Amino acid sequence: MQDITLCDIGNTHLHFYHKGRMWKEKPETLKKTWNGKLCYISVNAQYRSMLLKCDNQAIDLAPYLAINTDYVGLGADRIAGCMAISDGVIVDAGSAITIDVVENQKHLGGYILPGIASYVSVYAKISKALDVSPSFSLCCDILPQNTQEAIGYGILKSITAVIAEVAQDKKIYFSGGDGKFLSKFFSNAIYNEMLIFSGMQKALKAYNESNL
Amino acid sequence: MQDITLCDIGNTHLHFYHKGRMWKEKPETLKKTWNGKLCYISVNAQYRSMLLKCDNQAIDLAPYLAINTDYVGLGADRIAGCMAISDGVIVDAGSAITIDVVENQKHLGGYILPGIASYVSVYAKISKALDVSPSFSLCCDILPQNTQEAIGYGILKSITAVIAEVAQDKKIYFSGGDGKFLSKFFSNAIYNEMLIFSGMQKALKAYNESNL
Repeated sequence: MQDITLCDIGNTHLHFYHKGRMWKEKPETLKKTWNGKLCYISVNAQYRSMLLKCDNQAIDLAPYLAINTDYVGLGADRIAGCMAISDGVIVDAGSAITIDVVENQKHLGGYILPGIASYVSVYAKISKALDVSPSFSLCCDILPQNTQEAIGYGILKSITAVIAEVAQDKKIYFSGGDGKFLSKFFSNAIYNEMLIFSGMQKALKAYNESNL
Repeated sequence: MQDITLCDIGNTHLHFYHKGRMWKEKPETLKKTWNGKLCYISVNAQYRSMLLKCDNQAIDLAPYLAINTDYVGLGADRIAGCMAISDGVIVDAGSAITIDVVENQKHLGGYILPGIASYVSVYAKISKALDVSPSFSLCCDILPQNTQEAIGYGILKSITAVIAEVAQDKKIYFSGGDGKFLSKFFSNAIYNEMLIFSGMQKALKAYNESNL
């Protein structure tokens, strides 16, 4: 059996998977720590180049990703996530938050929201008065009573309200750095940090079959 | 009767009102175009200084603004907006979008979201692939089918879903540069660009009474 490491290249980190273990690396400090074959998908051309400098034998799985969709320009990570399930809503909460709807293995469409860290950074640019640490501690049913709560709740409610409206009673699969945190606000939530790697494993199978 | 001009100093523009006419000025190009007394409120200390350089006789109405609230740090513009109504939700959609709830002339709390222009700017910083002109043209019930729609809809839905959840069946009073646009998504909406100036007129009355 081949010794294969998977890599999902995002806009902040490179996410790795090897035999049940997951870790992430910053592109600036990336070193080749894997043995055997590296298979990747990427949404960031610059970081992809940095990975290929470390390992010029790395294989792009993008041609082996496949999902039935009318959406134009669906990122490789979103396709991989959608391939991992047959029905439900996928929320990948990283640098951006993508919300995709899958029904009978068909991708019906999806939204893109800023990631939580991006949301936080934008307030400080609007006004010095809004340059505060948002509070995410309170229950969402209480009206905010100061700037920290007004911003923290504003961010949280704007994300959760979109997810709730899109998902209705469907199962919601959360992934990404803020996925675990966001999943807590939903009773129909499943947190699965393996989601994109699961889709990549299907693509890897297709790659192996085509290279027999 | 005094010849009075009102000025609401925001984080992008200075908004003026004089005898039914409203206009806005950028702080960098501000000139004294008014006669008589200028009464202002401000959420931006730097722009306030720039106004006072133009007119050192200008009067700050902030001490004459009053609303019953437990909220700590409510901006002068938000207090003025709340003073203009007795029941309902106020959405002031400018550089930031503030959403405040008023019941029997008491302010119950409020949220702060990024303004639409700030939302748009943040995507380009996350990824080159997200540096597109968002599409706001489609109906909100159709799932987005490309990046422009995914971002435009993401922005719109995240704003309107929060407003809808907060407002329920209450009347929603929209104000600010994007107020008219956002008001179109609600059947219980009232667009009133005079809202903050109405609150300022009440403060002006209190000022005049205290200076008899």
